[in-house]
Amino acid sequence: MVIDLNADLGEGFGIWRLGDDTALLDLVTSANVACGFHAGDPLIIRRTCAAAVDRGVVIGAQVSYLDLAGFGRREMEIDAEELCSDILYQIAAVDGVARAMGGRVAYVKPHGALYNRVCRDAAQAEAVAAAVADYAPVSGGGTPLPVLTLPGSALRDAAARHGVPVVAECFADRAYTPAGALVSRRQPGAVLHDPDVVAERAVRMARDGVVIALDGSEVPVGARSVCVHGDTPDAVRIAAAVRKALIDAGVAVEAFA
Amino acid sequence: MVIDLNADLGEGFGIWRLGDDTALLDLVTSANVACGFHAGDPLIIRRTCAAAVDRGVVIGAQVSYLDLAGFGRREMEIDAEELCSDILYQIAAVDGVARAMGGRVAYVKPHGALYNRVCRDAAQAEAVAAAVADYAPVSGGGTPLPVLTLPGSALRDAAARHGVPVVAECFADRAYTPAGALVSRRQPGAVLHDPDVVAERAVRMARDGVVIALDGSEVPVGARSVCVHGDTPDAVRIAAAVRKALIDAGVAVEAFA
Amino acid sequence: MVIDLNADLGEGFGIWRLGDDTALLDLVTSANVACGFHAGDPLIIRRTCAAAVDRGVVIGAQVSYLDLAGFGRREMEIDAEELCSDILYQIAAVDGVARAMGGRVAYVKPHGALYNRVCRDAAQAEAVAAAVADYAPVSGGGTPLPVLTLPGSALRDAAARHGVPVVAECFADRAYTPAGALVSRRQPGAVLHDPDVVAERAVRMARDGVVIALDGSEVPVGARSVCVHGDTPDAVRIAAAVRKALIDAGVAVEAFA
Amino acid sequence: MVIDLNADLGEGFGIWRLGDDTALLDLVTSANVACGFHAGDPLIIRRTCAAAVDRGVVIGAQVSYLDLAGFGRREMEIDAEELCSDILYQIAAVDGVARAMGGRVAYVKPHGALYNRVCRDAAQAEAVAAAVADYAPVSGGGTPLPVLTLPGSALRDAAARHGVPVVAECFADRAYTPAGALVSRRQPGAVLHDPDVVAERAVRMARDGVVIALDGSEVPVGARSVCVHGDTPDAVRIAAAVRKALIDAGVAVEAFA
Repeated sequence: MVIDLNADLGEGFGIWRLGDDTALLDLVTSANVACGFHAGDPLIIRRTCAAAVDRGVVIGAQVSYLDLAGFGRREMEIDAEELCSDILYQIAAVDGVARAMGGRVAYVKPHGALYNRVCRDAAQAEAVAAAVADYAPVSGGGTPLPVLTLPGSALRDAAARHGVPVVAECFADRAYTPAGALVSRRQPGAVLHDPDVVAERAVRMARDGVVIALDGSEVPVGARSVCVHGDTPDAVRIAAAVRKALIDAGVAVEAFA
Repeated sequence: MVIDLNADLGEGFGIWRLGDDTALLDLVTSANVACGFHAGDPLIIRRTCAAAVDRGVVIGAQVSYLDLAGFGRREMEIDAEELCSDILYQIAAVDGVARAMGGRVAYVKPHGALYNRVCRDAAQAEAVAAAVADYAPVSGGGTPLPVLTLPGSALRDAAARHGVPVVAECFADRAYTPAGALVSRRQPGAVLHDPDVVAERAVRMARDGVVIALDGSEVPVGARSVCVHGDTPDAVRIAAAVRKALIDAGVAVEAFA
Repeated sequence: MVIDLNADLGEGFGIWRLGDDTALLDLVTSANVACGFHAGDPLIIRRTCAAAVDRGVVIGAQVSYLDLAGFGRREMEIDAEELCSDILYQIAAVDGVARAMGGRVAYVKPHGALYNRVCRDAAQAEAVAAAVADYAPVSGGGTPLPVLTLPGSALRDAAARHGVPVVAECFADRAYTPAGALVSRRQPGAVLHDPDVVAERAVRMARDGVVIALDGSEVPVGARSVCVHGDTPDAVRIAAAVRKALIDAGVAVEAFA
Repeated sequence: MVIDLNADLGEGFGIWRLGDDTALLDLVTSANVACGFHAGDPLIIRRTCAAAVDRGVVIGAQVSYLDLAGFGRREMEIDAEELCSDILYQIAAVDGVARAMGGRVAYVKPHGALYNRVCRDAAQAEAVAAAVADYAPVSGGGTPLPVLTLPGSALRDAAARHGVPVVAECFADRAYTPAGALVSRRQPGAVLHDPDVVAERAVRMARDGVVIALDGSEVPVGARSVCVHGDTPDAVRIAAAVRKALIDAGVAVEAFA
């Protein structure tokens, strides 16, 4: 039994900060680095990549809609060609900075509204997959980077068409619908805050491949990575509890990439 | 006798366009591609890189202050570490997109106010040179990209300290001071518009290594590249006149990179 | 018979321009001034307002999603409270600048994707109407500004709930569905370019209150204002043709506000 | 003896927050509300204005360079006409929102790098003063709003030329040079953090009109307002200490506007 622990990092901008990146980097195995479109300016990106390299944490490009004011949480109708170019630019920027710091981008994870949208919108999923495929000559000598998404998402299908590997992930601190989708953040109870509860869910996800949905039913989540959030007040305590619970349960916490 | 012809390209944003990129790409040998900070969105960058690759035009990263509203023409007091990161991010983004399109960034040219600033400000010049040096592991297996600047600029000295190659350029359509600096755009007569005049200056620059300054004196310009602008109404006619005049004068028009 | 002629103005940004504002200001009776969210920077806004005041053209606030990169043409899922505040801010900014120039904002018109969205989305329509109502104490001693929208739009209903007056408009250069909606710009034939055709449609709209839809059917458009676009190459010729045709048909071209 | 206590408020953006606005609003008499150019989005502006009106705190427009990435702390070379328009737009936007919330903008205070720049740059000071004067027909029936600046600043002179009233302020938590200027934030010791020390300085400023400079000399500060910062970790404790010390010393804490 092995699982990756991923979290969003570098989500400040200019003078503003969000979350305790330093503490999280000691707990997770994969860092979803914001690329500057919903958060993250070049200095933050550079420092986050350097810190991840220092700690041996794998770097992912956390690509987003261009939306600083809405933190990438506003779904957008955007032309596929524009979206594809936006994603390519973000991957390229963070990968180049990461390489200059001695690392590299090893996977791609859509952020926020884009994450949700590409789970169900074939056109936008196609645009994201195409961007990852376009970057294959740079990222890996022809092999595209893997994308992190929910099992059963439209992005999974689009990725398959482009030869882009898919890694399934689950969310230990998010409520699930019986169909295996995330409950919208706008609904009460969508985000769990109790470290013990979240940790227990993470263990069940990693060890048993299931999560208990809102209606009490058991939903399968065949995931290689568990996401913990970095922007809640309890983020570090939750990530620490999850990591400890996984190790205590005999699950190896290792990056997938 | 050989000279490079460079021009700023991809300087639109969103719905807005500036200059006739397609026509210019048939005339120049090096394309300074805007990186998104003063102009250029990801789709424009992608298309400009793809078009440059198609025509065998060499791609440069035209790095800038973050200033869409001022088109990068407002000098800024910016921390060296922030500036260095901004430059690194821009080079990385355009290089990654260019590589995805089958090309690569082969040089770096500061834009607008940053261009002028790093000619005389050692601290900002140092930040730009450091960014180019930081990117060396990515751009060329350890060899930094060359930077395009004026002879005698502070960037030349900073680049030397970082092992960054420098390529000197001159401006066929800009007035020069007797000291060899560009006359500020805010002064009348700073930009020349007559294609024949500009073409003649280009020939003298390329063949004789000199330009006639505002006071009539002859100023040396030891340049490997001549810049023609793309954002004036007569840009294409001027670039065509310059190219023809150079060839007629027996000067080979070839990229430096 | 009387009709208003409105057009989008001030839709440049920084160095970039869109359309010939000066020529259009001599033809239209109402200027939809971009507020800085999809286009229009403060200097452009100021100049556009000053020019409109000079020519006696009525000023409207052309409010938009925050989206320079997409020119406000990307629909967004945005919280009602955020949207309401965005709209209020835009109205306030342009009204204050207009008053400083000797005019004032006399109406509100949503732009692009927001325009289309509030025709059918009750929540976003409510947010826009609430913003206009919130501004009533400033704009008119308690009386809200009128909003310009399509007949039958959701904004019309939301406005009614808030005591916000509604002025119906029609588009002389846009194709209509049999249901009276605009054909999406993404479809071929959505925008008409022949000045004579557009002018004839404007006359039928103003005089007879009808337009011929895509399927040849006659659709009622009970409009007090006709919109002509400013961002097409033929914009000025079209606006001139429309104005002349209206006057020749005995329709008085007068602002509604 | 009477003094105003002003602080910067509403300096978050989107998801990001800076300082504890609610606590500060219970302590200060004047709120410098960020206008969206260095911080502050429309929802934050609206809420900050509404909260200030609720508590009877006077609202000022904290105008800035357009610089979210640098938090308005990067000095910029900007054309006077562009700067003037930027300032006018910001005043108009916040004033309109404040009026919709039942208040109004009662003064103007430049932020960050612009604050420092207009203390010594006549051209930019002129642009700011001109903007305030341009807004006079809206803000006060012809009387311009007062501007808050350092005694002896270039803005004071420019304001005088435009009939703009000037209110002098001092900074209880900033080190002063013997010449009465603020020590640059980039120097160590520029910002004081001990509430007792800051409070004592505030009392001496308000009661005796002096402050002890870096070299130990006593510098006159003829100020009607004392600024306390909101973005330091101890901001609220400092503001509370200052307010208490002033009242204990028999100084009335009252807004100037």
